[in-house]
Amino acid sequence: MSGQTDCLFCKIVEGAIPSNKVYEDERILGFRDIQPQAKEHILFIPKKHIPTMNDVSAEDWPLIADLLKAAQQTARELGIAESGFRLVNNCNKEGGQVIYHLHVHLLGGEPLGKING
Amino acid sequence: MSGQTDCLFCKIVEGAIPSNKVYEDERILGFRDIQPQAKEHILFIPKKHIPTMNDVSAEDWPLIADLLKAAQQTARELGIAESGFRLVNNCNKEGGQVIYHLHVHLLGGEPLGKING
Repeated sequence: MSGQTDCLFCKIVEGAIPSNKVYEDERILGFRDIQPQAKEHILFIPKKHIPTMNDVSAEDWPLIADLLKAAQQTARELGIAESGFRLVNNCNKEGGQVIYHLHVHLLGGEPLGKING
Repeated sequence: MSGQTDCLFCKIVEGAIPSNKVYEDERILGFRDIQPQAKEHILFIPKKHIPTMNDVSAEDWPLIADLLKAAQQTARELGIAESGFRLVNNCNKEGGQVIYHLHVHLLGGEPLGKING
């Protein structure tokens, strides 16, 4: 499924590095960001190693849709669906991507600021 | 397809309000934000009126995937895929949603700041 030996998020998928999980299914993992940028800050990743949004190929789009669906459901479970939340994907350097394993940030639990702050 | 009489983005879909289009297919429209928050700032919307990310139902997820795919392709066409970009969906008030017709921001063309600034 994953297995990039030098990838932090693949190690989290494999359990070699611990994480605070809030969502898991066969293909997707959701866990708390260790440096939260809002009251609630969850990262959703495909278990499969896809480096960036640029690397999503035709057969991967249903997986990306499922990942967003997992974020939508988790927002509801965290009680922030109605108050509001933000979903963010940073792609490559100028986008602010730090870990090169595709991830979507779910932010919420407070009024959020700018999308390019 | 759309037809919410009081929705700004439905009016853009219908052509009643002009927009600077950068992407269009049968179900999706991409146009420049009139108040850009980065050098490149495009909004991608489904032509169908879906108010927020909370309102995406089971049958809509392939549409949302196609919308992200349109953003991915547009980033490439704008020449910002490799330098980097950001995709953002704001849902409801605390997320920062202003127009209640689901949209995904594509930001790029410069080094971006915080995701909650």
